[in-house]
Amino acid sequence: MSLPSTSREWHLVARPSGWPTDDDFALREAPIKEPAPGQVLVRNRCLSVDPYMRGRMNETKSYVPPFRLDEPMTGDAIGEVVASEAEGIEVGDLVLHQLGWREYATLPAAWVSAVPRGLDVPDTAFLGVLGMTGHTAYAGLKEVAKVREGDVVFVSGAAGAVGSVAGQLARLLGASRVIGSAGGPEKTRLLTEEYGFDTALDYKAAPIGAQLAEAAPDGIDVYFDNVGGDHLEAALDALNTFGRVAACGMISSYNDTEPSPAPRNLGLVVGKRLRIEGFLVMDHAALRETFLREAGEWVSTGRLRHRETVVEGIEHATDAFLRMMRGGNVGKMLVAVDG
Amino acid sequence: MSLPSTSREWHLVARPSGWPTDDDFALREAPIKEPAPGQVLVRNRCLSVDPYMRGRMNETKSYVPPFRLDEPMTGDAIGEVVASEAEGIEVGDLVLHQLGWREYATLPAAWVSAVPRGLDVPDTAFLGVLGMTGHTAYAGLKEVAKVREGDVVFVSGAAGAVGSVAGQLARLLGASRVIGSAGGPEKTRLLTEEYGFDTALDYKAAPIGAQLAEAAPDGIDVYFDNVGGDHLEAALDALNTFGRVAACGMISSYNDTEPSPAPRNLGLVVGKRLRIEGFLVMDHAALRETFLREAGEWVSTGRLRHRETVVEGIEHATDAFLRMMRGGNVGKMLVAVDG
Repeated sequence: MSLPSTSREWHLVARPSGWPTDDDFALREAPIKEPAPGQVLVRNRCLSVDPYMRGRMNETKSYVPPFRLDEPMTGDAIGEVVASEAEGIEVGDLVLHQLGWREYATLPAAWVSAVPRGLDVPDTAFLGVLGMTGHTAYAGLKEVAKVREGDVVFVSGAAGAVGSVAGQLARLLGASRVIGSAGGPEKTRLLTEEYGFDTALDYKAAPIGAQLAEAAPDGIDVYFDNVGGDHLEAALDALNTFGRVAACGMISSYNDTEPSPAPRNLGLVVGKRLRIEGFLVMDHAALRETFLREAGEWVSTGRLRHRETVVEGIEHATDAFLRMMRGGNVGKMLVAVDG
Repeated sequence: MSLPSTSREWHLVARPSGWPTDDDFALREAPIKEPAPGQVLVRNRCLSVDPYMRGRMNETKSYVPPFRLDEPMTGDAIGEVVASEAEGIEVGDLVLHQLGWREYATLPAAWVSAVPRGLDVPDTAFLGVLGMTGHTAYAGLKEVAKVREGDVVFVSGAAGAVGSVAGQLARLLGASRVIGSAGGPEKTRLLTEEYGFDTALDYKAAPIGAQLAEAAPDGIDVYFDNVGGDHLEAALDALNTFGRVAACGMISSYNDTEPSPAPRNLGLVVGKRLRIEGFLVMDHAALRETFLREAGEWVSTGRLRHRETVVEGIEHATDAFLRMMRGGNVGKMLVAVDG
C-alpha cells in the first residue's frame, strides 16, 4: 500500500465561548512525518470524541493542559501501524493511542499499546466499554462510590458511554436497584430493555427531582453523576444517610458562559453525612487490569452490553463531538476515519 | 438545701419560619419530678446553645427528631446532682447530660456522665473545647478531612466554638498554615493573636473569595466548613487537587426561608478530584477517648486555647441562642442558669 504524503487533522483555531461553532475548528492538511527510530506511523481507523474534550478547548488550566490553538487536537484512537521503526511493533498491528482527531499519527512506540486479543469483542470496544469510558464507570463505582451489596444506585446520562456501563456494572457489583436518567423516550426505553435498569427517567418529560422521588421512595444510596445541576440537586434530596456521589462529570454546565446554577440543597450533606467526591480515571490506572479482566468477561458473555454511535468520515468529527455534547448519541460516540 | 417545687424550662411553642422570634419560645414553670429508683435529679448550672438546635426547631425530619412543641427543648448541660436514687451517683456530683434548657432535670442515671477529673481546666470546658464542639473539630480534621503534615487549612466561622478549636487543632495535627475567617476586626484579631492562625480574613470587610485567593496563593488543601454559601464557593476555587472539605455546618443558610444560593463552581470537584463530606460528631463517638486524652493535655498546658461567652440567667437563654446565631459570641456560647 502506498501512503499519501499528507494527513488531514482537526485543529482548534479559536477558543469557544459557550457552545463551539464551526468557526472554532479547521480540518487542515499536514505532511505525514516519517517515523524516526523508535517511532511508528499509525493510520487511524476510529476516533473517540468525549465530553472532557470541551474543557480542553478552554484557555483555563485544568487537570490536563488546554488544546493549543492551530495544532491538532488529541484524544483516544485506534489504528493500524503502517510503518514501524520500533522493535516489537509490526506493520499491520492494531494499536490504541491518544493522537486522535487526525488520519495519520507518527508517535513513539511507548505511546501506543496493542489492542488486547483473546476476547470475543469488536476492536472498537477498547475505545468504549473496555476503554476509557468503561474504566471510568468501573473506577467510579468501585473506588469512589464504593458500591455495596443492596445499594440503590442512580445514574444520570445513563444512555451515554459512561452512564450505560455504570448502570450495568452497578448491578453486576451488587446493587439491588438501578435507576437511570436520559433524554427522550428512545433512550429511556433502551435503559430498561437493553441495559437492565429497573427504572428509567426521561428528564425532558418532567422535572427530575419529582421523578426521582417517586422512583425511589426509600431513597438512593449512590449517585453516579454525569450531569450536575438539577440532577445533582435531585440526587442530594433522594440520598440516604451516608450516601455517596461519584462526581464523574457535569455535562450540563460545560458550555455555560455564566457560572452554573448549583444545587440549592447542598446543606443536606451535613445532616445526611453525604460524601461528594470528584474523580478522574487517570488516577485509577492501577485498576485497569482488574477492570479489563472482569469487564472483558462480562462483555464477552453478553452480561455487559454496549452500543456505539458511529459517524462516518473524519470531516464530520467535530459534528460528531457536538452531537454527542447535545445528547444525540446512544452509547459511545465514535468517528470512523474513512467515511 | 431545700429544693423548690418547680423548675423553669424553655418550651418551643411555634416553629420559626426564618429567624426565630420571642413568640416562638416560652419560659414555663413545671413541677420538679422526684427521681424514681435508678434516676437522679440534677440542678443545672450551665447550658449550651448551639447552631444545630436551629434545625431541631423545624418540623422536617433530620438526623435528630425535631423539638416537640410545648415541651422543653434539650441540649448539653452541666449540673449538680441534688437527689439520687441511683447507685454510684452521690448528691453533689457534677454531671454532664443532655436535658438542658431548664433549671432542674430528672433523668435516668445512664443518661448522665461524671465531669472528668484530673485535668486543670474549668468544668465548663466540657461543654466546649473538651465537649461536643471540640470533639466535632477533632473528628472533622482527623477522620473526615484527614489533615496531614504540611496541609494548608482554611476554617470558616473561626472565632466560634468549633472553628476556634479546629484552627488550633489543625496546627497541632501538622498543618503548615492555617487561615481563618470571622466577622469584624475584634474577632479576626483574636484569631491571629490568641489562637495562632497565620492569617485571619474579615468576611464583612470584603468578598471572601478574593481575600482567600490572596491569602493562599498556592491554594488550600483542607476546608473546614461551618458556614457554607460564599465561603464554600471561595474554598472550592482555592482548593488544590485532591483537596478535602469537612462539612460541619452551613450556618449561613439555617434561617433561610428560600433555598440557599449555592456555590456556582461545584463542577470543580471533578477536575480537582475534591471530596466534600458531611459529618456529625455522634458518628465519631469511638474517637472521644483519644480526643479527651490528647486535647485535654493541650488545654491543660495552654497549647489549645478557648474562650467562652457566658450569658447570665436562664431567662436569657433564647437571647443567647439568637445572639450566637448572629455571630455575637466569641468562642463557646453558654448560659449560666442562675444569673
